[in-house]
Amino acid sequence: MGAAAIDVEYYPQENDRARLALSTCNVVFGNPPAAWLTDATRVQFVQLESAGFGEYLSLAPIALARRLKIANLKGFFAEPVAESILAGILSHFRGIGALARLQERIRWVGDDLRPHLRTLKGAAVVLFGNGDINNRLSEMLVPFGCSVRRFGRGWVSAELNSALSVADVLVCTVPHTAETSGLFDRALIEQLKAGALFVNFGRGSLVDENALADALDSGRLGGAVIDVTSEEPLPLEHRFWNCPNLLLTQHTGGGTADEIDRKIDVFLANLTRYRSGEEPLGLIDFQRGY
Amino acid sequence: MGAAAIDVEYYPQENDRARLALSTCNVVFGNPPAAWLTDATRVQFVQLESAGFGEYLSLAPIALARRLKIANLKGFFAEPVAESILAGILSHFRGIGALARLQERIRWVGDDLRPHLRTLKGAAVVLFGNGDINNRLSEMLVPFGCSVRRFGRGWVSAELNSALSVADVLVCTVPHTAETSGLFDRALIEQLKAGALFVNFGRGSLVDENALADALDSGRLGGAVIDVTSEEPLPLEHRFWNCPNLLLTQHTGGGTADEIDRKIDVFLANLTRYRSGEEPLGLIDFQRGY
Repeated sequence: MGAAAIDVEYYPQENDRARLALSTCNVVFGNPPAAWLTDATRVQFVQLESAGFGEYLSLAPIALARRLKIANLKGFFAEPVAESILAGILSHFRGIGALARLQERIRWVGDDLRPHLRTLKGAAVVLFGNGDINNRLSEMLVPFGCSVRRFGRGWVSAELNSALSVADVLVCTVPHTAETSGLFDRALIEQLKAGALFVNFGRGSLVDENALADALDSGRLGGAVIDVTSEEPLPLEHRFWNCPNLLLTQHTGGGTADEIDRKIDVFLANLTRYRSGEEPLGLIDFQRGY
Repeated sequence: MGAAAIDVEYYPQENDRARLALSTCNVVFGNPPAAWLTDATRVQFVQLESAGFGEYLSLAPIALARRLKIANLKGFFAEPVAESILAGILSHFRGIGALARLQERIRWVGDDLRPHLRTLKGAAVVLFGNGDINNRLSEMLVPFGCSVRRFGRGWVSAELNSALSVADVLVCTVPHTAETSGLFDRALIEQLKAGALFVNFGRGSLVDENALADALDSGRLGGAVIDVTSEEPLPLEHRFWNCPNLLLTQHTGGGTADEIDRKIDVFLANLTRYRSGEEPLGLIDFQRGY
Protein backbone atom coordinates (compact mmCIF):
# COMPACT_ATOMS: atom_id res chain seq x y z
CA MET A 1 0.00 0.00 0.00
CA GLY A 2 3.00 2.35 -0.49
CA ALA A 3 3.93 2.48 3.19
CA ALA A 4 7.66 2.95 3.78
CA ALA A 5 9.61 -0.05 5.06
CA ILE A 6 10.09 -0.20 8.81
CA ASP A 7 13.60 -0.60 10.19
CA VAL A 8 13.29 -2.47 13.47
CA GLU A 9 16.02 -2.77 16.09
CA TYR A 10 15.73 -4.62 19.37
CA TYR A 11 17.62 -3.74 22.53
CA PRO A 12 16.88 -6.05 25.44
CA GLN A 13 19.26 -4.25 27.84
CA GLU A 14 19.62 -0.68 29.06
CA ASN A 15 23.15 0.01 27.78
CA ASP A 16 25.08 2.57 25.73
CA ARG A 17 24.18 0.91 22.42
CA ALA A 18 20.48 1.09 23.27
CA ARG A 19 20.78 4.73 24.30
CA LEU A 20 22.63 5.59 21.09
CA ALA A 21 19.97 3.81 19.04
CA LEU A 22 17.30 6.05 20.53
CA SER A 23 18.94 9.07 18.83
CA THR A 24 18.26 7.57 15.41
CA CYS A 25 14.70 6.27 15.74
CA ASN A 26 11.20 7.73 15.51
CA VAL A 27 9.17 5.18 17.43
CA VAL A 28 9.95 3.31 20.65
CA PHE A 29 8.15 0.29 22.11
CA GLY A 30 9.15 -0.23 25.72
CA ASN A 31 10.13 1.77 28.78
CA PRO A 32 13.52 3.46 28.18
CA PRO A 33 14.90 5.60 31.02
CA ALA A 34 13.12 8.96 30.89
CA ALA A 35 16.44 10.85 30.75
CA TRP A 36 17.33 9.13 27.48
CA LEU A 37 14.27 10.60 25.81
CA THR A 38 15.38 14.15 26.69
CA ASP A 39 18.22 13.88 24.16
CA ALA A 40 16.46 11.64 21.64
CA THR A 41 15.04 14.46 19.56
CA ARG A 42 13.93 12.24 16.67
CA VAL A 43 11.58 10.13 18.78
CA GLN A 44 7.98 11.08 18.02
CA PHE A 45 6.02 8.25 19.61
CA VAL A 46 6.73 6.00 22.61
CA GLN A 47 4.48 3.07 23.42
CA LEU A 48 5.17 2.18 27.03
CA GLU A 49 4.64 -1.42 28.08
CA SER A 50 3.25 -0.37 31.45
CA ALA A 51 0.19 1.35 32.79
CA GLY A 52 2.32 3.34 35.23
CA PHE A 53 4.19 6.33 33.77
CA GLY A 54 5.18 8.36 36.84
CA GLU A 55 8.85 8.32 35.83
CA TYR A 56 7.97 10.09 32.53
CA LEU A 57 6.06 13.00 34.07
CA SER A 58 9.33 14.98 34.29
CA LEU A 59 9.34 14.98 30.48
CA ALA A 60 6.19 17.10 30.33
CA PRO A 61 7.91 20.33 29.14
CA ILE A 62 9.86 18.44 26.45
CA ALA A 63 6.91 16.34 25.37
CA LEU A 64 4.71 19.41 25.08
CA ALA A 65 7.38 21.50 23.29
CA ARG A 66 8.45 18.76 20.91
CA ARG A 67 5.01 17.19 20.38
CA LEU A 68 6.45 13.89 21.65
CA LYS A 69 3.59 11.47 22.15
CA ILE A 70 3.80 8.82 24.88
CA ALA A 71 1.09 6.18 25.27
CA ASN A 72 0.72 3.96 28.29
CA LEU A 73 -1.20 0.68 28.61
CA LYS A 74 -4.20 2.23 30.33
CA GLY A 75 -6.73 -0.43 31.25
CA PHE A 76 -4.52 -3.24 29.95
CA PHE A 77 -3.87 -4.71 33.39
CA ALA A 78 -7.27 -4.10 34.97
CA GLU A 79 -8.44 -7.72 34.83
CA PRO A 80 -5.30 -9.50 36.09
CA VAL A 81 -4.56 -6.86 38.73
CA ALA A 82 -8.13 -6.82 40.03
CA GLU A 83 -8.05 -10.65 40.17
CA SER A 84 -4.74 -10.56 42.05
CA ILE A 85 -6.18 -8.02 44.49
CA LEU A 86 -9.28 -10.14 45.15
CA ALA A 87 -7.07 -13.24 45.41
CA GLY A 88 -4.95 -11.43 48.00
CA ILE A 89 -7.95 -10.16 49.98
CA LEU A 90 -9.72 -13.53 50.03
CA SER A 91 -6.44 -15.29 50.85
CA HIS A 92 -6.08 -13.03 53.86
CA PHE A 93 -9.65 -13.63 55.06
CA ARG A 94 -9.48 -17.39 54.39
CA GLY A 95 -5.91 -18.05 55.59
CA ILE A 96 -4.49 -19.27 52.26
CA GLY A 97 -1.00 -17.88 52.84
CA ALA A 98 -0.74 -19.54 56.25
CA LEU A 99 -2.04 -22.82 54.77
CA ALA A 100 0.54 -22.72 51.96
CA ARG A 101 3.31 -22.23 54.50
CA LEU A 102 2.01 -25.05 56.73
CA GLN A 103 1.96 -27.34 53.70
CA GLU A 104 5.65 -26.58 53.06
CA ARG A 105 6.34 -27.83 56.58
CA ILE A 106 4.00 -30.84 56.19
CA ARG A 107 2.11 -29.61 59.22
CA TRP A 108 -1.62 -30.19 59.77
CA VAL A 109 -3.36 -27.68 62.03
CA GLY A 110 -6.90 -28.01 60.73
CA ASP A 111 -9.68 -27.04 63.16
CA ASP A 112 -7.48 -24.73 65.23
CA LEU A 113 -7.11 -22.46 62.19
CA ARG A 114 -10.83 -21.95 61.81
CA PRO A 115 -11.33 -19.31 64.53
CA HIS A 116 -8.70 -17.18 62.77
CA LEU A 117 -10.67 -17.04 59.51
CA ARG A 118 -13.16 -14.41 58.47
CA THR A 119 -15.43 -13.70 55.55
CA LEU A 120 -15.31 -10.77 53.16
CA LYS A 121 -19.10 -10.56 52.99
CA GLY A 122 -20.37 -7.21 54.21
CA ALA A 123 -16.91 -5.81 54.92
CA ALA A 124 -16.26 -2.06 54.73
CA VAL A 125 -13.90 -1.46 51.80
CA VAL A 126 -12.13 1.74 50.78
CA LEU A 127 -10.95 1.86 47.18
CA PHE A 128 -8.30 4.56 46.83
CA GLY A 129 -7.86 5.15 43.10
CA ASN A 130 -10.51 5.88 40.52
CA GLY A 131 -9.10 4.06 37.51
CA ASP A 132 -9.75 0.88 35.56
CA ILE A 133 -8.41 -1.49 38.21
CA ASN A 134 -10.75 -0.32 40.95
CA ASN A 135 -13.60 -0.15 38.42
CA ARG A 136 -13.07 -3.83 37.71
CA LEU A 137 -12.55 -4.70 41.38
CA SER A 138 -15.82 -2.92 42.24
CA GLU A 139 -17.64 -5.27 39.87
CA MET A 140 -16.00 -8.30 41.48
CA LEU A 141 -16.99 -7.09 44.96
CA VAL A 142 -20.71 -6.74 44.15
CA PRO A 143 -21.65 -10.31 45.23
CA PHE A 144 -19.97 -9.75 48.59
CA GLY A 145 -22.29 -6.92 49.57
CA CYS A 146 -19.40 -4.85 50.87
CA SER A 147 -19.94 -1.23 51.78
CA VAL A 148 -17.54 0.38 49.31
CA ARG A 149 -16.22 3.95 49.48
CA ARG A 150 -14.14 5.23 46.56
CA PHE A 151 -11.65 8.06 46.46
CA GLY A 152 -9.62 9.42 43.56
CA ARG A 153 -8.05 12.60 42.30
CA GLY A 154 -9.38 15.52 44.31
CA TRP A 155 -10.19 13.43 47.37
CA VAL A 156 -11.10 15.31 50.53
CA SER A 157 -8.74 14.43 53.38
CA ALA A 158 -11.36 14.58 56.10
CA GLU A 159 -13.60 12.19 54.18
CA LEU A 160 -10.74 9.80 53.46
CA ASN A 161 -9.67 9.82 57.12
CA SER A 162 -13.19 9.11 58.24
CA ALA A 163 -13.59 6.23 55.77
CA LEU A 164 -10.22 4.75 56.79
CA SER A 165 -11.24 4.69 60.42
CA VAL A 166 -14.04 2.20 59.72
CA ALA A 167 -12.51 0.26 56.79
CA ASP A 168 -11.86 -3.47 57.05
CA VAL A 169 -9.97 -3.36 53.75
CA LEU A 170 -8.10 -0.51 52.02
CA VAL A 171 -7.14 -1.04 48.37
CA CYS A 172 -4.71 1.47 46.83
CA THR A 173 -4.25 1.56 43.05
CA VAL A 174 -3.16 5.17 42.56
CA PRO A 175 -0.22 6.07 40.30
CA HIS A 176 2.90 7.83 41.45
CA THR A 177 2.16 11.55 41.40
CA ALA A 178 3.22 14.53 43.47
CA GLU A 179 -0.02 14.17 45.46
CA THR A 180 0.26 10.44 46.15
CA SER A 181 3.99 10.18 46.87
CA GLY A 182 4.44 9.54 50.59
CA LEU A 183 0.74 10.14 51.24
CA PHE A 184 0.32 7.12 53.51
CA ASP A 185 2.71 8.34 56.16
CA ARG A 186 2.68 7.20 59.77
CA ALA A 187 -0.16 9.54 60.68
CA LEU A 188 -2.49 8.34 57.91
CA ILE A 189 -1.66 4.67 58.54
CA GLU A 190 -2.67 5.29 62.14
CA GLN A 191 -6.08 6.47 60.91
CA LEU A 192 -6.83 2.92 59.74
CA LYS A 193 -9.17 0.83 61.83
CA ALA A 194 -7.43 -1.72 64.06
CA GLY A 195 -7.22 -5.07 62.29
CA ALA A 196 -7.64 -3.60 58.80
CA LEU A 197 -6.05 -5.09 55.69
CA PHE A 198 -3.79 -2.73 53.70
CA VAL A 199 -3.56 -3.54 49.98
CA ASN A 200 -1.25 -1.68 47.58
CA PHE A 201 -1.17 -2.43 43.86
CA GLY A 202 -0.40 1.14 42.70
CA ARG A 203 3.11 2.34 43.34
CA GLY A 204 5.40 1.74 46.31
CA SER A 205 6.09 5.45 46.74
CA LEU A 206 2.58 5.88 48.20
CA VAL A 207 3.56 4.37 51.55
CA ASP A 208 5.96 4.98 54.41
CA GLU A 209 7.13 1.37 54.43
CA ASN A 210 8.65 1.54 57.90
CA ALA A 211 5.44 2.89 59.38
CA LEU A 212 3.45 0.12 57.66
CA ALA A 213 5.89 -2.52 58.91
CA ASP A 214 5.54 -1.12 62.44
CA ALA A 215 1.75 -1.28 62.25
CA LEU A 216 1.93 -4.93 61.14
CA ASP A 217 4.62 -5.95 63.63
CA SER A 218 2.66 -4.43 66.50
CA GLY A 219 -0.49 -6.25 65.37
CA ARG A 220 -2.44 -3.02 65.01
CA LEU A 221 -3.10 -3.77 61.35
CA GLY A 222 -4.53 -7.18 60.46
CA GLY A 223 -2.44 -7.69 57.35
CA ALA A 224 -1.23 -6.37 54.02
CA VAL A 225 -1.07 -7.44 50.41
CA ILE A 226 1.80 -5.62 48.74
CA ASP A 227 2.46 -5.83 45.01
CA VAL A 228 4.61 -2.72 44.71
CA THR A 229 7.48 -1.47 46.85
CA SER A 230 9.72 1.57 46.83
CA GLU A 231 12.57 -0.65 45.63
CA GLU A 232 12.07 -3.66 43.33
CA PRO A 233 13.36 -6.33 43.59
CA LEU A 234 12.73 -5.90 47.29
CA PRO A 235 16.12 -5.86 49.07
CA LEU A 236 16.84 -9.00 51.10
CA GLU A 237 17.08 -6.99 54.32
CA HIS A 238 13.74 -5.21 53.81
CA ARG A 239 11.33 -5.59 56.73
CA PHE A 240 8.40 -6.57 54.45
CA TRP A 241 9.81 -10.08 53.91
CA ASN A 242 9.07 -10.96 57.52
CA CYS A 243 6.12 -8.81 58.54
CA PRO A 244 3.29 -10.89 60.03
CA ASN A 245 0.31 -11.35 57.70
CA LEU A 246 1.98 -9.45 54.86
CA LEU A 247 1.74 -11.16 51.46
CA LEU A 248 4.25 -9.98 48.86
CA THR A 249 3.04 -10.50 45.30
CA GLN A 250 6.29 -9.21 43.77
CA HIS A 251 4.76 -6.89 41.16
CA THR A 252 3.13 -9.84 39.41
CA GLY A 253 -0.36 -8.27 39.61
CA GLY A 254 -0.58 -7.52 35.89
CA GLY A 255 0.95 -10.78 34.71
CA THR A 256 -0.71 -13.28 32.41
CA ALA A 257 0.58 -16.00 30.12
CA ASP A 258 -0.46 -14.00 27.05
CA GLU A 259 0.80 -10.65 28.39
CA ILE A 260 3.61 -10.11 25.83
CA ASP A 261 1.42 -11.06 22.88
CA ARG A 262 -1.30 -8.70 24.05
CA LYS A 263 1.21 -5.87 24.54
CA ILE A 264 2.54 -6.36 21.01
CA ASP A 265 -1.03 -6.28 19.71
CA VAL A 266 -1.58 -2.89 21.38
CA PHE A 267 1.72 -1.56 20.03
CA LEU A 268 1.07 -2.74 16.47
CA ALA A 269 -2.41 -1.24 16.48
CA ASN A 270 -0.99 2.09 17.70
CA LEU A 271 1.89 1.91 15.21
CA THR A 272 -0.62 1.54 12.41
CA ARG A 273 -2.51 4.57 13.72
CA TYR A 274 0.70 6.58 14.03
CA ARG A 275 1.85 5.74 10.49
CA SER A 276 -1.50 6.63 8.99
CA GLY A 277 -1.47 9.97 10.79
CA GLU A 278 -4.10 9.00 13.36
CA GLU A 279 -3.68 9.74 17.06
CA PRO A 280 -2.44 6.63 18.95
CA LEU A 281 -4.75 5.40 21.71
CA GLY A 282 -3.90 5.79 25.37
CA LEU A 283 -1.74 8.93 25.08
CA ILE A 284 -0.59 10.45 28.34
CA ASP A 285 -2.04 13.92 28.77
CA PHE A 286 0.97 15.95 29.89
CA GLN A 287 -1.20 19.04 30.33
CA ARG A 288 -3.25 17.21 32.93
CA GLY A 289 -0.32 15.23 34.29
CA TYR A 290 -1.97 11.80 34.14
CA MET B 1 -43.37 -19.38 81.48
CA GLY B 2 -43.75 -22.78 83.04
CA ALA B 3 -41.06 -24.43 80.96
CA ALA B 4 -39.25 -27.25 82.77
CA ALA B 5 -35.67 -26.58 83.82
CA ILE B 6 -33.01 -27.81 81.44
CA ASP B 7 -30.28 -30.07 82.78
CA VAL B 8 -27.18 -29.43 80.69
CA GLU B 9 -24.09 -31.65 80.62
CA TYR B 10 -21.00 -30.99 78.55
CA TYR B 11 -18.69 -33.71 77.25
CA PRO B 12 -15.73 -32.39 75.26
CA GLN B 13 -14.26 -35.86 74.60
CA GLU B 14 -15.57 -39.06 73.00
CA ASN B 15 -15.18 -41.35 76.00
CA ASP B 16 -17.19 -43.84 78.08
CA ARG B 17 -18.63 -41.12 80.31
CA ALA B 18 -19.92 -39.26 77.27
CA ARG B 19 -21.43 -42.42 75.80
CA LEU B 20 -23.14 -43.25 79.08
CA ALA B 21 -24.53 -39.73 79.32
CA LEU B 22 -26.25 -40.17 75.95
CA SER B 23 -28.42 -42.90 77.43
CA THR B 24 -29.97 -40.41 79.86
CA CYS B 25 -30.58 -37.37 77.70
CA ASN B 26 -33.24 -36.23 75.22
CA VAL B 27 -31.37 -33.63 73.21
CA VAL B 28 -27.81 -33.66 71.87
CA PHE B 29 -25.83 -30.75 70.45
CA GLY B 30 -22.75 -32.00 68.60
CA ASN B 31 -21.64 -34.95 66.49
CA PRO B 32 -21.51 -38.10 68.64
CA PRO B 33 -20.43 -41.32 66.92
CA ALA B 34 -23.42 -42.66 65.00
CA ALA B 35 -23.20 -46.06 66.72
CA TRP B 36 -23.76 -44.42 70.12
CA LEU B 37 -27.14 -43.15 69.00
CA THR B 38 -28.30 -46.68 68.17
CA ASP B 39 -28.44 -47.51 71.87
CA ALA B 40 -29.41 -44.07 73.15
CA THR B 41 -33.14 -44.67 73.01
CA ARG B 42 -34.08 -41.55 74.98
CA VAL B 43 -32.51 -39.15 72.49
CA GLN B 44 -35.23 -37.40 70.49
CA PHE B 45 -33.36 -34.57 68.83
CA VAL B 46 -29.75 -34.20 67.71
CA GLN B 47 -28.43 -30.89 66.41
CA LEU B 48 -25.26 -31.70 64.46
CA GLU B 49 -22.59 -29.02 64.30
CA SER B 50 -21.76 -29.90 60.70
CA ALA B 51 -23.41 -29.64 57.33
CA GLY B 52 -22.13 -33.09 56.40
CA PHE B 53 -24.06 -36.03 57.87
CA GLY B 54 -22.93 -38.99 55.76
CA GLU B 55 -21.87 -40.95 58.85
CA TYR B 56 -25.46 -40.78 60.21
CA LEU B 57 -27.19 -42.18 57.12
CA SER B 58 -26.81 -45.68 58.55
CA LEU B 59 -29.19 -44.62 61.32
CA ALA B 60 -32.07 -44.21 58.86
CA PRO B 61 -34.06 -47.29 60.02
CA ILE B 62 -33.66 -46.34 63.69
CA ALA B 63 -34.38 -42.69 63.10
CA LEU B 64 -37.51 -43.52 61.14
CA ALA B 65 -38.72 -46.18 63.60
CA ARG B 66 -38.00 -44.18 66.71
CA ARG B 67 -38.93 -40.77 65.30
CA LEU B 68 -35.40 -39.56 66.17
CA LYS B 69 -34.89 -36.17 64.59
CA ILE B 70 -31.42 -35.11 63.44
CA ALA B 71 -30.77 -31.62 62.10
CA ASN B 72 -27.64 -30.61 60.25
CA LEU B 73 -26.28 -27.11 59.64
CA LYS B 74 -27.54 -26.91 56.08
CA GLY B 75 -26.46 -23.65 54.47
CA PHE B 76 -24.52 -22.59 57.56
CA PHE B 77 -21.13 -22.87 55.87
CA ALA B 78 -22.11 -21.64 52.40
CA GLU B 79 -20.51 -18.22 52.73
CA PRO B 80 -17.14 -19.17 54.25
CA VAL B 81 -16.78 -22.30 52.11
CA ALA B 82 -17.65 -20.46 48.87
CA GLU B 83 -15.18 -17.74 49.84
CA SER B 84 -12.48 -20.33 50.53
CA ILE B 85 -13.19 -21.96 47.17
CA LEU B 86 -12.93 -18.67 45.29
CA ALA B 87 -9.80 -17.81 47.32
CA GLY B 88 -8.29 -21.14 46.26
CA ILE B 89 -9.25 -20.75 42.60
CA LEU B 90 -7.97 -17.17 42.34
CA SER B 91 -4.82 -18.11 44.27
CA HIS B 92 -4.16 -20.80 41.68
CA PHE B 93 -4.71 -18.48 38.73
CA ARG B 94 -2.72 -15.61 40.30
CA GLY B 95 0.11 -17.65 41.84
CA ILE B 96 -0.56 -16.75 45.49
CA GLY B 97 0.60 -20.11 46.90
CA ALA B 98 3.90 -19.93 45.01
CA LEU B 99 4.39 -16.32 46.15
CA ALA B 100 3.76 -17.25 49.80
CA ARG B 101 6.37 -19.99 49.53
CA LEU B 102 8.91 -17.68 47.85
CA GLN B 103 8.39 -15.17 50.65
CA GLU B 104 9.24 -17.87 53.21
CA ARG B 105 12.58 -18.28 51.42
CA ILE B 106 13.08 -14.50 51.06
CA ARG B 107 13.34 -15.02 47.32
CA TRP B 108 12.29 -12.44 44.73
CA VAL B 109 11.34 -13.81 41.32
CA GLY B 110 9.05 -11.03 40.13
CA ASP B 111 8.68 -10.66 36.37
CA ASP B 112 9.59 -14.26 35.61
CA LEU B 113 6.46 -15.39 37.45
CA ARG B 114 4.14 -13.34 35.25
CA PRO B 115 4.00 -15.71 32.24
CA HIS B 116 2.80 -18.45 34.61
CA LEU B 117 -0.26 -16.48 35.72
CA ARG B 118 -3.72 -16.61 34.23
CA THR B 119 -7.08 -14.94 34.76
CA LEU B 120 -10.34 -16.57 35.79
CA LYS B 121 -12.36 -14.34 33.48
CA GLY B 122 -14.28 -16.34 30.92
CA ALA B 123 -13.07 -19.72 32.21
CA ALA B 124 -15.21 -22.85 31.79
CA VAL B 125 -16.32 -23.97 35.24
CA VAL B 126 -18.10 -27.18 36.25
CA LEU B 127 -19.89 -27.04 39.61
CA PHE B 128 -20.54 -30.57 40.84
CA GLY B 129 -23.04 -30.30 43.66
CA ASN B 130 -26.35 -28.49 43.70
CA GLY B 131 -26.44 -27.23 47.26
CA ASP B 132 -26.01 -23.97 49.10
CA ILE B 133 -22.24 -23.74 48.64
CA ASN B 134 -22.35 -23.88 44.86
CA ASN B 135 -25.38 -21.57 44.88
CA ARG B 136 -23.29 -18.99 46.69
CA LEU B 137 -20.21 -19.65 44.56
CA SER B 138 -22.31 -19.15 41.41
CA GLU B 139 -23.19 -15.67 42.61
CA MET B 140 -19.54 -14.87 43.27
CA LEU B 141 -18.57 -16.08 39.78
CA VAL B 142 -21.04 -13.81 37.95
CA PRO B 143 -18.61 -10.88 37.52
CA PHE B 144 -16.05 -13.23 35.96
CA GLY B 145 -18.27 -14.14 33.04
CA CYS B 146 -17.38 -17.82 33.36
CA SER B 147 -19.32 -20.41 31.41
CA VAL B 148 -20.74 -22.42 34.30
CA ARG B 149 -22.21 -25.93 34.07
CA ARG B 150 -23.88 -27.38 37.16
CA PHE B 151 -24.53 -31.00 38.07
CA GLY B 152 -26.22 -32.47 41.09
CA ARG B 153 -28.23 -35.49 42.19
CA GLY B 154 -29.43 -37.35 39.12
CA TRP B 155 -26.56 -36.13 36.92
CA VAL B 156 -26.19 -37.78 33.52
CA SER B 157 -22.74 -39.36 33.16
CA ALA B 158 -22.36 -38.58 29.48
CA GLU B 159 -23.14 -34.90 30.10
CA LEU B 160 -20.77 -34.71 33.06
CA ASN B 161 -17.97 -36.36 31.05
CA SER B 162 -18.48 -33.97 28.20
CA ALA B 163 -18.45 -30.93 30.51
CA LEU B 164 -15.31 -32.17 32.29
CA SER B 165 -13.45 -32.48 28.99
CA VAL B 166 -13.68 -28.71 28.41
CA ALA B 167 -13.59 -27.43 32.01
CA ASP B 168 -10.82 -25.15 33.22
CA VAL B 169 -12.07 -25.53 36.79
CA LEU B 170 -14.04 -28.33 38.49
CA VAL B 171 -15.56 -27.56 41.90
CA CYS B 172 -16.94 -30.51 43.89
CA THR B 173 -19.14 -29.85 46.93
CA VAL B 174 -21.17 -33.07 47.05
CA PRO B 175 -21.79 -34.95 50.30
CA HIS B 176 -20.69 -38.50 50.98
CA THR B 177 -23.39 -40.78 49.59
CA ALA B 178 -23.43 -44.21 47.95
CA GLU B 179 -23.47 -42.46 44.55
CA THR B 180 -20.58 -40.06 45.18
CA SER B 181 -18.23 -42.37 47.06
CA GLY B 182 -15.28 -43.14 44.79
CA LEU B 183 -16.98 -41.47 41.84
CA PHE B 184 -13.88 -39.59 40.70
CA ASP B 185 -11.85 -42.68 39.95
CA ARG B 186 -8.87 -42.77 37.59
CA ALA B 187 -11.09 -42.98 34.51
CA LEU B 188 -13.18 -39.92 35.40
CA ILE B 189 -10.13 -37.89 36.42
CA GLU B 190 -8.71 -38.67 32.97
CA GLN B 191 -11.82 -37.12 31.43
CA LEU B 192 -10.70 -33.74 32.74
CA LYS B 193 -9.21 -31.28 30.29
CA ALA B 194 -5.41 -31.05 30.44
CA GLY B 195 -4.34 -28.23 32.73
CA ALA B 196 -7.65 -28.14 34.62
CA LEU B 197 -7.94 -27.18 38.29
CA PHE B 198 -9.58 -29.81 40.55
CA VAL B 199 -11.31 -28.36 43.63
CA ASN B 200 -12.88 -30.52 46.36
CA PHE B 201 -14.71 -29.03 49.35
CA GLY B 202 -17.31 -31.83 49.71
CA ARG B 203 -15.98 -35.06 51.15
CA GLY B 204 -12.68 -36.84 50.57
CA SER B 205 -14.39 -40.11 49.73
CA LEU B 206 -15.37 -38.66 46.34
CA VAL B 207 -11.88 -39.03 44.90
CA ASP B 208 -9.32 -41.74 44.16
CA GLU B 209 -6.53 -39.79 45.81
CA ASN B 210 -3.73 -41.79 44.19
CA ALA B 211 -5.15 -41.20 40.73
CA LEU B 212 -5.45 -37.47 41.46
CA ALA B 213 -1.88 -37.35 42.77
CA ASP B 214 -0.69 -39.12 39.60
CA ALA B 215 -2.50 -36.60 37.40
CA LEU B 216 -0.85 -33.72 39.29
CA ASP B 217 2.60 -35.29 39.43
CA SER B 218 2.55 -35.94 35.69
CA GLY B 219 1.51 -32.36 35.02
CA ARG B 220 -1.64 -33.44 33.21
CA LEU B 221 -3.81 -31.50 35.66
CA GLY B 222 -2.92 -27.87 36.30
CA GLY B 223 -3.59 -27.94 40.02
CA ALA B 224 -5.91 -28.79 42.88
CA VAL B 225 -7.45 -27.12 45.92
CA ILE B 226 -8.27 -29.80 48.46
CA ASP B 227 -10.17 -29.06 51.66
CA VAL B 228 -11.27 -32.62 52.42
CA THR B 229 -9.36 -35.88 52.34
CA SER B 230 -10.20 -39.51 52.98
CA GLU B 231 -8.25 -39.32 56.22
CA GLU B 232 -8.07 -36.18 58.39
CA PRO B 233 -5.63 -35.06 59.69
CA LEU B 234 -3.84 -36.00 56.47
CA PRO B 235 -1.17 -38.60 57.29
CA LEU B 236 2.39 -37.26 57.09
CA GLU B 237 3.27 -39.75 54.37
CA HIS B 238 0.28 -38.84 52.15
CA ARG B 239 1.21 -37.87 48.59
CA PHE B 240 -0.99 -34.73 48.68
CA TRP B 241 1.51 -32.87 50.88
CA ASN B 242 3.98 -32.71 48.02
CA CYS B 243 1.89 -32.74 44.85
CA PRO B 244 2.79 -29.87 42.54
CA ASN B 245 0.21 -27.04 42.47
CA LEU B 246 -1.96 -28.72 45.10
CA LEU B 247 -3.16 -26.40 47.88
CA LEU B 248 -4.33 -28.13 51.06
CA THR B 249 -6.82 -26.06 53.03
CA GLN B 250 -7.06 -28.61 55.87
CA HIS B 251 -10.86 -28.68 56.21
CA THR B 252 -10.88 -25.01 57.22
CA GLY B 253 -13.36 -24.08 54.49
CA GLY B 254 -16.25 -23.52 56.85
CA GLY B 255 -14.27 -21.74 59.53
CA THR B 256 -14.94 -18.26 60.82
CA ALA B 257 -14.05 -16.40 63.99
CA ASP B 258 -17.71 -16.37 65.05
CA GLU B 259 -18.38 -19.99 64.02
CA ILE B 260 -19.03 -21.39 67.51
CA ASP B 261 -21.29 -18.50 68.50
CA ARG B 262 -23.29 -18.88 65.30
CA LYS B 263 -23.61 -22.65 65.83
CA ILE B 264 -24.91 -22.11 69.36
CA ASP B 265 -27.42 -19.59 68.01
CA VAL B 266 -28.76 -22.21 65.58
CA PHE B 267 -28.94 -24.84 68.31
CA LEU B 268 -30.73 -22.57 70.79
CA ALA B 269 -33.26 -21.53 68.16
CA ASN B 270 -33.93 -25.19 67.33
CA LEU B 271 -34.05 -26.13 71.00
CA THR B 272 -36.74 -23.50 71.52
CA ARG B 273 -38.71 -24.93 68.60
CA TYR B 274 -38.27 -28.48 69.91
CA ARG B 275 -39.44 -27.57 73.43
CA SER B 276 -42.49 -25.74 72.13
CA GLY B 277 -43.41 -28.73 69.97
CA GLU B 278 -42.43 -27.11 66.70
CA GLU B 279 -40.36 -28.94 64.09
CA PRO B 280 -36.65 -27.97 64.31
CA LEU B 281 -35.20 -26.40 61.16
CA GLY B 282 -32.75 -28.29 58.92
CA LEU B 283 -33.91 -31.82 59.73
CA ILE B 284 -32.27 -34.59 57.71
CA ASP B 285 -34.84 -36.35 55.56
CA PHE B 286 -34.02 -40.03 56.14
CA GLN B 287 -36.66 -41.08 53.62
CA ARG B 288 -34.81 -39.20 50.88
CA GLY B 289 -31.37 -39.93 52.32
CA TYR B 290 -30.09 -36.32 52.24
